[in-house]
Amino acid sequence: MRAVDIIHKKRNGGSLTNEELSFLIQGYSRGEIPDYQMSAWAMAVYFQGMNPEETAFLTLAMAESGDRVDLSPIRGIKVDKHSTGGVGDKTSLIIGPLVASCGVPVAKMSGRGLGHTGGTIDKMESMPGFRTELAREDFIAQVNDIGVAIIGQSGDLAPADKKLYALRDVTATVESIPLIASSVMSKKIAAGADAIVLDVKTGSGAFMKTLDDSERLAKAMVEIGTQVGRRTAALISDMDQPLGFAIGNALEVREAIQTLHGRGPDDLTELCIALASHMVVLGGQAANLKEAEAALREKLRSGEALAKFKAFVAAQGGDPAVGDDPALLPQAPVLVEVPAPKSGHVHAIQAEELGLAAMLLGAGRAMKDSVIDHAVGITLRRKVGEEVREGETIALLHVREDGDAAQAVLRRVQDAYAIGDEPAQPSPLLLSIVTEQGVTRF
Amino acid sequence: MRAVDIIHKKRNGGSLTNEELSFLIQGYSRGEIPDYQMSAWAMAVYFQGMNPEETAFLTLAMAESGDRVDLSPIRGIKVDKHSTGGVGDKTSLIIGPLVASCGVPVAKMSGRGLGHTGGTIDKMESMPGFRTELAREDFIAQVNDIGVAIIGQSGDLAPADKKLYALRDVTATVESIPLIASSVMSKKIAAGADAIVLDVKTGSGAFMKTLDDSERLAKAMVEIGTQVGRRTAALISDMDQPLGFAIGNALEVREAIQTLHGRGPDDLTELCIALASHMVVLGGQAANLKEAEAALREKLRSGEALAKFKAFVAAQGGDPAVGDDPALLPQAPVLVEVPAPKSGHVHAIQAEELGLAAMLLGAGRAMKDSVIDHAVGITLRRKVGEEVREGETIALLHVREDGDAAQAVLRRVQDAYAIGDEPAQPSPLLLSIVTEQGVTRF
Repeated sequence: MRAVDIIHKKRNGGSLTNEELSFLIQGYSRGEIPDYQMSAWAMAVYFQGMNPEETAFLTLAMAESGDRVDLSPIRGIKVDKHSTGGVGDKTSLIIGPLVASCGVPVAKMSGRGLGHTGGTIDKMESMPGFRTELAREDFIAQVNDIGVAIIGQSGDLAPADKKLYALRDVTATVESIPLIASSVMSKKIAAGADAIVLDVKTGSGAFMKTLDDSERLAKAMVEIGTQVGRRTAALISDMDQPLGFAIGNALEVREAIQTLHGRGPDDLTELCIALASHMVVLGGQAANLKEAEAALREKLRSGEALAKFKAFVAAQGGDPAVGDDPALLPQAPVLVEVPAPKSGHVHAIQAEELGLAAMLLGAGRAMKDSVIDHAVGITLRRKVGEEVREGETIALLHVREDGDAAQAVLRRVQDAYAIGDEPAQPSPLLLSIVTEQGVTRF
Repeated sequence: MRAVDIIHKKRNGGSLTNEELSFLIQGYSRGEIPDYQMSAWAMAVYFQGMNPEETAFLTLAMAESGDRVDLSPIRGIKVDKHSTGGVGDKTSLIIGPLVASCGVPVAKMSGRGLGHTGGTIDKMESMPGFRTELAREDFIAQVNDIGVAIIGQSGDLAPADKKLYALRDVTATVESIPLIASSVMSKKIAAGADAIVLDVKTGSGAFMKTLDDSERLAKAMVEIGTQVGRRTAALISDMDQPLGFAIGNALEVREAIQTLHGRGPDDLTELCIALASHMVVLGGQAANLKEAEAALREKLRSGEALAKFKAFVAAQGGDPAVGDDPALLPQAPVLVEVPAPKSGHVHAIQAEELGLAAMLLGAGRAMKDSVIDHAVGITLRRKVGEEVREGETIALLHVREDGDAAQAVLRRVQDAYAIGDEPAQPSPLLLSIVTEQGVTRF
C-alpha cells in the first residue's frame, strides 16, 4: 500500500477502505508518512468529502493512535459532553454536578484554553486549592464515590488527531466537516465515553456560521457515534452573543454557582437543562427528554445539584464553602464601567471579540505558556434585545488597574456591541437537535 | 504574506497575484515554505485550476528560481522544441540539423532518460567520441559557427520546478494542466528560448489520453508563451504506436540518419517536417508553413540537412562518417525474431510497453544510475494497419545474448501488439495544431 495511491483515490472521488485509512493514520503517527502527503490528502478530502463509513474509520484510527482511557471500572453509562467552543461557556461546571445528581456518572477530561478565556480546567483552578490532576485510579474512585470528577487531560489521547489538526491549521484544510467531526469524536472515544452529547455552536461568533453547516457537522458526528457504537446526540445553539453574562475564569465559576442555585441567566440555564436532559436519557436515568428535564429542574430546585457541586469541589481539594459564598473566589480590585457609545437597541454582541478583550485583560492565554489571571474578565449588563441609552453602563471590566490597556479594552467591548435604532429580538438560543433519528428544528 | 492564506485563497477559487505566486515559489526554493504547504496548494490547484495570467506568473517565478541561459550572443531567433515524451522519439536528432540548414539557430539543451529508452543525450552518446558537455562559450560559438549544438543540461535551470515536480509526483498532484504546462515552459524559458515549438503526444501511450485534454494542455502552454513574450506553437500527434521502427539508442540514431537521407519511416519524416516547419516560421526564415515545408523537403532532398548533421557530429567530437555508414554505430551481437502470436491485423501497439521492454534489454535506465547499453533495443517489422500471419516476424530484439531474459521480453513485445480479425487503419499521425490564433484540427 502506498500513500500516494490513497491520495490519488480520494482526489478522484473514491471511498477509502478501513485498511487504507488505518495505513494512513498509523503511518502518519509513526512518522513514516510525511506531512506533505497528509496535507495533500486533507485537501483532497476538503474537496471530495468522506462518506459516513470513511469518517468513522478515520475516527477510530485516530482514537487508536494513542492511549485509551478505560472507564469500565465505573458503574453505569458514562456520558461525555463536548462543546465546539464558545465565549462565556461555563456549562461543564454546571452540567457535571447536575447530571451526576440524577445518577449519571460524569468522568470528564477537559482542556486548558488557548486564545480568549481559559478552558474548563482553568476556570476550575480559580477555586483556591482545587486540583485538576488526579491519578487515574483516584479519578475513577471519585466518580464511583460521588458521581462526578473533572480533570485535565492526562496521557496521550488521539495523538494522530493532534498532529493532523496542527497540520490542517497551516494548510487551509481545517474547514472540512468530516475532518472536524472525526477530530472531535476521536478524542471523546479515546477518553472512554459510552455516549456523547455535543453542544454545537452556530452563528457569526462560531466556527460554523450557518445553521445548515452546523447541522451538517452535527449529523457527521452523530453518524460517527452510530457507526462506532457510541450513542450520540447534538444540540445546536446560537452564538450571536456570549452565553450568560460572565466572561473570565472566576467570574464564570461564580455564574455557574448562581445557576446551580437556580438563579442563573436564562440562556445559560436553558442550555444546561437541554444538554443535561440528553445526557440523562443517554445515561439511562430517564425514559425520555421530558422526564429528564423535570428531574433536572427538581435537582436544581431542591439544592441537590448544588450539594453535588460542593462534594465535587471538596473531593478535588477545593473549599466547598465556595458554593454558598462566591466571595471566596479571587476578585479583581478595580471595576471599570463600559458606557454605551450611543442610544438604541442591542442587535448583536460579537462573542469572539469579547473573548479577545477578556484575553487582553489577562483572562486567557495569548501564547501556550501565558499565565492566566483568574480574577479578571468582563461582565455584561446588557444583552441582545435590550434598550440602552448613551453613557449607560453596558458592561463592567474586572481589572487589576485602570489605565491605557483597560481603556483600549473598553473601546473593543463598545465596538463588539452592535447598537441600532430599531428594536431587536434576541434569536432563540436552541435551534435544532440532531440524533440518530434525524434533525429536529425547534 | 502567509502561505496558508495563499492556499486558502486558491482553495476557495480565488486568483493568485504575481506577488503571491512569487512569494510562494521563492519561499519554497529557499526552503522557507515547507513541502506540506506546497502539496496542499498543488492539490487546491488541481481542483480549482489557474487562469492564464496565474499560470504565466507561476512559470516565470519558476524560471527565475535558478540559472537562466543567456543565448543573446547567438544571432537570430532561437527556437526551441520540446516533446511531452514518446517511445522511439528521435525527432531532435533530425530536426536540429534540418532546421539549422534553413538558417534557424538551434541551441538545445536536452535531458537524459529515466525509464524506457534514453533521452536525446543518451542517443547521441551512442556515436563514438560524441561529447554532450560543452562549455557555455563553446556551445554558443558552435551555434554561431555551424547553426546547431545539442548538449546536456548544465547549470541549475528552474530548480523550483524540479523540487515541485518531485513533490507532485508523491502527492497525486501531477495531473493538473496548469501545473504541467508551467513546468514544461519554465524550463524552456530558463534555457533561453525566444520561441518554442511543442510536440504534444496524445493517446493511450501518452500522458494525455484524449485529444481534448491534449489540446487543453497545448493551449495552456501556448497561452503561457503569449503572456511571457515567447511565441509558441504546439503540434498534437498520435501515440497509439511508437514513432518510426527503432527503439533503442544507436538504433534510433541509425533511423534518424536514414531520415536525413530522405529514406526514413513516413510517420517520423512527416512529424519532423511538421515540427520543423513551425520552427522555421517562428525563426523568421519562411513567411508561412507552406514555404517552410517546401524549403525543408528541399534540404532533405539536396543532402544539405545531412551535411549539417555531419558538421554537427564533427563539431561535438564524433566521427562524421557515421552519417554515411551507420555500421560505425555500436551493434548488438544477437538478433532474436519476435513471431506474431496469431494471424490478423495490427490494431495498436502499446508504445509504453515497448519502451519498458527496451529498458529491460538495457536500452534505458530502471534507476537514476543505471548504465545504458547503446547497442540494444527493438526494431519493429509491422505497424498498425498491417496484416500479419501467425509465426511471421513482427519485430526484432537486438540483444547481447538470447536467453530467459530475452524470451521474457519477447513475450512482452508480443503482448504489446493488439492483433484483431478485422482490417485496421492506422489513425492519422498529426491531429491538431494549437497556436496563438487558436486550435486547428487536421
